[in-house]
Amino acid sequence: MPRIDADRLLSDLRHLRSIGAQGSGVVRPAFSPKDMEARRWLKSRYEEAGLEATIDGVGNVLGRSRQRGKALLIGSHSDTQPTGGWLDGARGVVYALEVARALGADGETRALAVDTVSFQDEESRFIGCLGSRSLTGTLPAEIERDAVDNGGVKLADALREAGLAAAPRLRLEAGRYAGFVEAHIEQGPDLEDTGRKIGVVSGIVGLRGIRFTFRGQQNHAGTTMMARRKDAATALYELAHRINQEFPKVAGPRTVWTMGRLRVEPNATSIVPGYADLDLQFRDASEAPLEAFEKVVARLVAEMNARDNGSGVRVEATPARTPISPTRMDPGLQEHIARAAERLVPGKWQRMSSGAFHDAGFMSAALPSAMLFIPSIGGISHDFAEDSRDEDIVLGCQVLADASASIPTEANART
Amino acid sequence: MPRIDADRLLSDLRHLRSIGAQGSGVVRPAFSPKDMEARRWLKSRYEEAGLEATIDGVGNVLGRSRQRGKALLIGSHSDTQPTGGWLDGARGVVYALEVARALGADGETRALAVDTVSFQDEESRFIGCLGSRSLTGTLPAEIERDAVDNGGVKLADALREAGLAAAPRLRLEAGRYAGFVEAHIEQGPDLEDTGRKIGVVSGIVGLRGIRFTFRGQQNHAGTTMMARRKDAATALYELAHRINQEFPKVAGPRTVWTMGRLRVEPNATSIVPGYADLDLQFRDASEAPLEAFEKVVARLVAEMNARDNGSGVRVEATPARTPISPTRMDPGLQEHIARAAERLVPGKWQRMSSGAFHDAGFMSAALPSAMLFIPSIGGISHDFAEDSRDEDIVLGCQVLADASASIPTEANART
Repeated sequence: MPRIDADRLLSDLRHLRSIGAQGSGVVRPAFSPKDMEARRWLKSRYEEAGLEATIDGVGNVLGRSRQRGKALLIGSHSDTQPTGGWLDGARGVVYALEVARALGADGETRALAVDTVSFQDEESRFIGCLGSRSLTGTLPAEIERDAVDNGGVKLADALREAGLAAAPRLRLEAGRYAGFVEAHIEQGPDLEDTGRKIGVVSGIVGLRGIRFTFRGQQNHAGTTMMARRKDAATALYELAHRINQEFPKVAGPRTVWTMGRLRVEPNATSIVPGYADLDLQFRDASEAPLEAFEKVVARLVAEMNARDNGSGVRVEATPARTPISPTRMDPGLQEHIARAAERLVPGKWQRMSSGAFHDAGFMSAALPSAMLFIPSIGGISHDFAEDSRDEDIVLGCQVLADASASIPTEANART
Repeated sequence: MPRIDADRLLSDLRHLRSIGAQGSGVVRPAFSPKDMEARRWLKSRYEEAGLEATIDGVGNVLGRSRQRGKALLIGSHSDTQPTGGWLDGARGVVYALEVARALGADGETRALAVDTVSFQDEESRFIGCLGSRSLTGTLPAEIERDAVDNGGVKLADALREAGLAAAPRLRLEAGRYAGFVEAHIEQGPDLEDTGRKIGVVSGIVGLRGIRFTFRGQQNHAGTTMMARRKDAATALYELAHRINQEFPKVAGPRTVWTMGRLRVEPNATSIVPGYADLDLQFRDASEAPLEAFEKVVARLVAEMNARDNGSGVRVEATPARTPISPTRMDPGLQEHIARAAERLVPGKWQRMSSGAFHDAGFMSAALPSAMLFIPSIGGISHDFAEDSRDEDIVLGCQVLADASASIPTEANART
């Protein structure tokens, strides 16, 4: 079996961490100068590993094997949240690189085709999973045209500034792939809590978003009596709190919801706000609680707008993004990962669903896809404090290498 | 009696409006280039009116009469809110200029001393009423040292950039003044609702502020189950909504409260917020409801922090500013304004308290002080839509001119 090089793996991960490092975290949002620097570094590393490397027109870095036969595509994303952790995405990207090197260095696996990828903008600066949607041809032109980041920058301008405007966009080559595998930190506490080392992902939760807008009347905070106010923030606080009171009544045991982004205008201590907006996001592995939440939201908004002595604030709820349906990972690929895990850490792995969305969700519509998780310390992610133990990082990569040796082998045996 | 020049008054008001104009509003925050441009223009206008004009070390523009005897100080502020209306402050500043000119042009009043002032930063970019506090010697050095604006700019740096670092700071000249009068738009709807043209201000409401901080744990919005979350925004929504439910039970008929400024970090749709803060401001003409609000806040915060199965978010409430006690306007000066109003618009004036704070609040601790209001269309202020009718603007200035003729006359007769 191929052996990964633990020192080389950790050294490359730490180098990638250094690009955009801030304290213990990393600030490398999609298309930022640091993000593009990281992508150019990855491209050079892919080339050193013998792959034919390209940065495509949306910033995806693809490393293409020169071997023949069914290929396995491995990777994740190297862009980060605005204040991100060092492993989210980056770990899966460097795993892919190390697995390609390890299989290429082993006589038994040298002939296997392993392609590597770092997708662009998984973290939604402009469009969540922009890179995997582009690669799989599921990025509608109107969504791309309207895409702006929180600072009002247009995607088209970001592409131009990153020097990508003229670069061709890659599409998945038909018939080339036996499948796609993405390794990732769990970003939750379940593996750590149960003392397990590997999660074999059975499916990815579905996700829906609603944007609320609150339109009132901006006014002076001293002279406008309470009865005359149309305070957009007051309506926001009420709706958000009532959602937090009502959702638990219809939620499943692992349904989650978040209202983590809002805006109040003009956001001044002495001014009654005339406008506010708020994002609600909710996720579950099945559709039923998501449907139930939509109904609760519709009822609360209708109640607030229908009040006789209403707040004078008009509340609107609009879908904030295309809903993502719950997806299943490929059972055959899951088996390859499960077998590798059982061989290396018998009994210390489990099947689990992913509460976070990943590029593998879009990839699974085009290719058999699978994911493997390793433990996150304290379950913390999307935070500078995000971390994993070195030994868990090394073990996860070896499991991926073993699975990656068996997946294209089996596919080539079939054809 | 002196006659104001309506065309000159409106023309000067419109010129001042043009400095920093954005649509129908004005963006001229304290110490901005536009604010300083307006102050230099005022200084030149004061000089043309025969006054000895100075811009002092905090940006106050003072026009000093060359006449002897007890002087009357008239004025307001020419800085604006971040998205301000064109009359707030500016009207009172141009009234002072016009009254000084009108009294100077009239044989009967030519010998009266009328000083004019435009105070700096009434609107709290750094320190609310910075200018009148500086002039009256009630600006503690530690407050000034710590002052930063919402963008993190230090007051000391703003002073230096405005070219004021070396300019002397003026103090009220002891014994010079018979009193201070500030004219202002009402910024509320009461005069318009009752069809009255002039408000004689009996007092200014007291004001207190509390800043809440919410400290939780930033985490991933998909993988962190609800029971494990420490969501700072969830705690903010709850506290804000409960305040809005509880305050009406202890409020007076004209108590107001506002939660118009908040921050959620990192303010991203897919991240459980780890930190949030929120400003609460409340005002009343008497202390009792303000005290009652403080007690409600203490109880709600204690309840949220004491919960057995708490949200895991630590809530803290700290005084956000030095409380301002309710203040009374000088009864004698009120009489001068009331008599002028009754003569010009019999029966169409009223006494009223000011729900907004004004420089006259700080001035009243040093000098007999008074204010007069004119109607605001729709009661709208601190908004680009802020406006008043030209005829109301002209009438108010004539009332102020008449009162300004009688106040120093009487003071000089007494001495």
